[in-house]
Amino acid sequence: MAGNSFGTLFKLTTYGESHGIAIGGVIDGCPAGLELNLEAIQHDLDRRKPGQSNIVTQRKESDTVQFLSGIFEGVTTGTPIGFQIVNENQKSRDYSHIKETYRPSHADKTYDDKYGIRDYRGGGRSSARETACRVVAGAIAKQLLNNITIQAYTSSVGNLHLNTTYDQLDLSTTDDTAVRCPDAAMAKEMTHKILEVRKAGDTIGGTVTCVIKNVPAGLGEPVFDKLHADLAKAMLSINAVKGFEYGSGFHGATMNGSAHNDLYNEDGTTQTNLSGGIQGGISNGMDIYFKVAFKPVATVIQPQETINKAGEKLTMQGKGRHDPCVVPRAVPIVESMAALVLADHLLRARTSKI
Amino acid sequence: MAGNSFGTLFKLTTYGESHGIAIGGVIDGCPAGLELNLEAIQHDLDRRKPGQSNIVTQRKESDTVQFLSGIFEGVTTGTPIGFQIVNENQKSRDYSHIKETYRPSHADKTYDDKYGIRDYRGGGRSSARETACRVVAGAIAKQLLNNITIQAYTSSVGNLHLNTTYDQLDLSTTDDTAVRCPDAAMAKEMTHKILEVRKAGDTIGGTVTCVIKNVPAGLGEPVFDKLHADLAKAMLSINAVKGFEYGSGFHGATMNGSAHNDLYNEDGTTQTNLSGGIQGGISNGMDIYFKVAFKPVATVIQPQETINKAGEKLTMQGKGRHDPCVVPRAVPIVESMAALVLADHLLRARTSKI
Amino acid sequence: MAGNSFGTLFKLTTYGESHGIAIGGVIDGCPAGLELNLEAIQHDLDRRKPGQSNIVTQRKESDTVQFLSGIFEGVTTGTPIGFQIVNENQKSRDYSHIKETYRPSHADKTYDDKYGIRDYRGGGRSSARETACRVVAGAIAKQLLNNITIQAYTSSVGNLHLNTTYDQLDLSTTDDTAVRCPDAAMAKEMTHKILEVRKAGDTIGGTVTCVIKNVPAGLGEPVFDKLHADLAKAMLSINAVKGFEYGSGFHGATMNGSAHNDLYNEDGTTQTNLSGGIQGGISNGMDIYFKVAFKPVATVIQPQETINKAGEKLTMQGKGRHDPCVVPRAVPIVESMAALVLADHLLRARTSKI
Amino acid sequence: MAGNSFGTLFKLTTYGESHGIAIGGVIDGCPAGLELNLEAIQHDLDRRKPGQSNIVTQRKESDTVQFLSGIFEGVTTGTPIGFQIVNENQKSRDYSHIKETYRPSHADKTYDDKYGIRDYRGGGRSSARETACRVVAGAIAKQLLNNITIQAYTSSVGNLHLNTTYDQLDLSTTDDTAVRCPDAAMAKEMTHKILEVRKAGDTIGGTVTCVIKNVPAGLGEPVFDKLHADLAKAMLSINAVKGFEYGSGFHGATMNGSAHNDLYNEDGTTQTNLSGGIQGGISNGMDIYFKVAFKPVATVIQPQETINKAGEKLTMQGKGRHDPCVVPRAVPIVESMAALVLADHLLRARTSKI
Repeated sequence: MAGNSFGTLFKLTTYGESHGIAIGGVIDGCPAGLELNLEAIQHDLDRRKPGQSNIVTQRKESDTVQFLSGIFEGVTTGTPIGFQIVNENQKSRDYSHIKETYRPSHADKTYDDKYGIRDYRGGGRSSARETACRVVAGAIAKQLLNNITIQAYTSSVGNLHLNTTYDQLDLSTTDDTAVRCPDAAMAKEMTHKILEVRKAGDTIGGTVTCVIKNVPAGLGEPVFDKLHADLAKAMLSINAVKGFEYGSGFHGATMNGSAHNDLYNEDGTTQTNLSGGIQGGISNGMDIYFKVAFKPVATVIQPQETINKAGEKLTMQGKGRHDPCVVPRAVPIVESMAALVLADHLLRARTSKI
Repeated sequence: MAGNSFGTLFKLTTYGESHGIAIGGVIDGCPAGLELNLEAIQHDLDRRKPGQSNIVTQRKESDTVQFLSGIFEGVTTGTPIGFQIVNENQKSRDYSHIKETYRPSHADKTYDDKYGIRDYRGGGRSSARETACRVVAGAIAKQLLNNITIQAYTSSVGNLHLNTTYDQLDLSTTDDTAVRCPDAAMAKEMTHKILEVRKAGDTIGGTVTCVIKNVPAGLGEPVFDKLHADLAKAMLSINAVKGFEYGSGFHGATMNGSAHNDLYNEDGTTQTNLSGGIQGGISNGMDIYFKVAFKPVATVIQPQETINKAGEKLTMQGKGRHDPCVVPRAVPIVESMAALVLADHLLRARTSKI
Repeated sequence: MAGNSFGTLFKLTTYGESHGIAIGGVIDGCPAGLELNLEAIQHDLDRRKPGQSNIVTQRKESDTVQFLSGIFEGVTTGTPIGFQIVNENQKSRDYSHIKETYRPSHADKTYDDKYGIRDYRGGGRSSARETACRVVAGAIAKQLLNNITIQAYTSSVGNLHLNTTYDQLDLSTTDDTAVRCPDAAMAKEMTHKILEVRKAGDTIGGTVTCVIKNVPAGLGEPVFDKLHADLAKAMLSINAVKGFEYGSGFHGATMNGSAHNDLYNEDGTTQTNLSGGIQGGISNGMDIYFKVAFKPVATVIQPQETINKAGEKLTMQGKGRHDPCVVPRAVPIVESMAALVLADHLLRARTSKI
Repeated sequence: MAGNSFGTLFKLTTYGESHGIAIGGVIDGCPAGLELNLEAIQHDLDRRKPGQSNIVTQRKESDTVQFLSGIFEGVTTGTPIGFQIVNENQKSRDYSHIKETYRPSHADKTYDDKYGIRDYRGGGRSSARETACRVVAGAIAKQLLNNITIQAYTSSVGNLHLNTTYDQLDLSTTDDTAVRCPDAAMAKEMTHKILEVRKAGDTIGGTVTCVIKNVPAGLGEPVFDKLHADLAKAMLSINAVKGFEYGSGFHGATMNGSAHNDLYNEDGTTQTNLSGGIQGGISNGMDIYFKVAFKPVATVIQPQETINKAGEKLTMQGKGRHDPCVVPRAVPIVESMAALVLADHLLRARTSKI
């Protein structure tokens, strides 16, 4: 109930603070017999890790995952998969300046409100470092999903919006740029924007769009655990996310039903896909697509006024090496959380019929 | 795992099809000793029920809730609260025309895909009638929440957007109009729009905004069960919802961190509230607010081409008495789901500290 | 978390007090496509109901189950199966004498300790009447289990022990006697004993043995949710149960390993079955068998000294029509709980392998 | 659902195979603010570890626990407590002889039945080595339980039964003997018996009795999650356990109600305690006590006939250093599982009332 687990049948539990000994997790419920490509898992971790380009944080951390159980001779055994990523960057002195200070729009004060105690080093448990564990589990989920593909990409940075739909893009090029936008011209603009923002000691928000193809019809539980409801929760559980929409999304709320309905072809596919691949909470076999909004990172290098535990005003200034824009590194996290949701529902669907 | 339960400590399980004998549910985990105002519960149900005005479906159904257990001499006993709402409107003949037909953008086909069988009468389990049970449970949750207030209202219909923030509105007037928009002029426009759409045999989407006040700091679990992640799931689990945003939402994704950060006052409140009352997944005591997008109702009275089970094309036309716009009746549903989330986290917070 | 649900994938939630309007439940997760024999369900309820013979309580209650959802044209639809049993016997005046009194070895005082309030009429939620809902769900589970058979019987009453193992008995004769012992001579003795005890205004304990045949190998989760651990919990959750043993049980604790080990035949069956059909928490295809101990019913007609809420001593005397021995009516309850465990693990086993 | 988690609010998830890199776990839901005595945790681990005396396995393994998260400056932070115990003893060659062989009364064949694959080294996940993680979590739970004491001891080995009740024993002397029987004369006999059995290349079963004192009234959920039902499941989930009884247990099934009822004193305590401290599934403040039956260890050094995967008969002989009697090392495991159940219900009880 303390909320460190995700999923029902394919279930991830994570632990770890940003500056503790290690972060890690347990995947329970991965079926036996899955031959794992461990390189693919590390590859997804590398897509998330700090220091990978000049538009992300310059912290250096190798983020190497070590598997401790549940895999025998390269194949999952059905028993829990324990894994860990050792924290190489545990210098707690960097953070002594925030021990008594509540950084604006961080979780410092709310953790104190909730727990009465907090590991203040680097954000502790509230650090986005925790998402590395999600990427490990998501990368395994992707392999379970087999030919279902999950592709996310940066669809906006600040006011720079990619005004093409996903089907007009070559998503195989997403990783060609550090900003992970599959439109070369826009990628250039976004990169420029992020560098500009960094130079100003500021940060900027953005959105990630995600597309899931080859989903079999019939995934999702119809009432509370609608497939898109679980996707929404998955996305909103990622640090810095402020919004989620799928299919026609907020724009759909402006439309008429006669225009919004997806008419059928004779083969059961639909002529349009404003439904976003899900009807009544259950996948219909069309592409699932959704968009996730990320606020700008709260740690800015500009001086800001804030308070300390005692309620006294003081001026603080972000130190260290923070992301000017979280979106490029969020792309694999979005994919991972989507993969966890899909893997869970793929297993759940096995019990829908006798 | 079949997804008909919501919540962890304050938990609702629902059952029932739109044209079965009854719909109902079980609330497990409501603490003992809560003196219930049963009229307030029925009042919320009445806000949701069909036939309440000329801009909603003209179906007549009294939607009277009957409590079967868990309440003794007006007070909750801590044991499960069973309840039911008898379906008065069980004429299955009305729906024979859709027995073999898949209505566009409904769940007919996906239910068949998932289960291989479906109660086709009036949408069966996929009918929004199920949400009446959520309103019953939500109304009880509201009473548990005590002085936490949850107020939702219609913030847009089609392209008619209420361009004022919630704090500029008198939310006590929401129910003064059938459309539930607390701005009289806009309410008039919206009502006109809905009547126009109905006349055309069409439907229209809209948004509901919800504000939660007096939330104690410290609610929410920090990783997967962030307070806003649970709100997102709650909202996306409501029929016809396509999107969710809280605090600065999608707009926040266009902003810079220096502008987005909520600076502290000395008393721990914040000068702005782009965070939407939640930081790091935990409430900070400021107002929680969010917006929910509803697509237009899929049942239109205009003729549409579709297919049947055999994959043959045919033309169908919506019959019966459907909502031209789901939003006015969705207002109490949004509030109810928010109340369920808050009640659950209020109880969960009791175990955060020794 | 309030503990009114049982199972994970095949999940029963119950509600209801003995003297409320109705008791009932929701079965979530029953796969779609199961053609239900409703008579068989009512038949199991009749095996549990009061008044069925002269050795059980003489209360009259028809215990007729009504299904409210989840079944369409006789077949499960995969949506939750709501059901209820109306309480015909709601005379609360019978119980006014216990409003302020704590009956010895009942749950009166502990309910007050826990909740600070209690529906004192007839035991309220602590009444074994709640088990009728388990029988409904168990009877559906039995049908899902197909050719797995679950047969329980009375194996002792007081010191009258059936000293034959289950394979020496004809279990098809269990219901031939009201006491449900499949050995005619012993059944006679037991019946005599119960009538004697009743006459003395007393009650007596006993045991139920249960045998499950045709279980496929591979059911059960190996660590915490071992098949026998879930059976143990299921049995101990039944009112009045004090003990559980499976396979060699407590006797096995006196044995040497060389004698206890079940040696294999070439076909993978075992020559003996001290393991009780389960090894490492997973079924091995041999018969599962276990024994459940029931204490004597606490309500005795003899006068007893006790206390009231104020801590004052007083003498009370059981009124009404109570069971002199709970075991005969417990037989279908034991079977039902076993069926719920098996059905749940049958579904869980569907995700063990890719 | 794969069954590697235990508890609801105080929840342990474990991972690890006996001959993998490490075993470990995550404790989620331990409230913040608990000052941990780490030595006490290691002390309980040492009570369980192999090689501690001449009547247990002579394997040497230090079983040192390392905490990775959730503890800051010696105090729990409310975030998940990750921990691991590195396997020092990973020589897989010792087990090559069982790769294709199914050992009698082990889980070799059932794991293959369930998963189609198995880490055969030392029993893999089915090894009782997994219980070390339970001891870590249980030792933390004990500290959360504060002045509730949990004391287990060896109450029988084979046919040597300790025929005194727990209140006649000085439980502080339990650990004075390697066999953990708090009766010096009986301890001597038991030790002799175990050494004799070991010499014969055989093994022997036994029982553990456990007493829990100072439990506040009101713990336990009344229907499916009765306090004793959760204790039963906890105990049956321990390797080699075949039975559980609490309070009057199986003997209670032979008694009359008039003799079995626990009459009240004026202060609400009871004159006798055949109820075992629990009534209606809820603790009543009296001592909770129960007994657990352990079968003899299946690995015997004597040659035994068995089969291999191909179904061919062969003779095998246990190698290595196995426990002749599991009971002495099981004592801390029983305590730990009891502590997990109590800690969970202690937290659950926080939401029983408004």
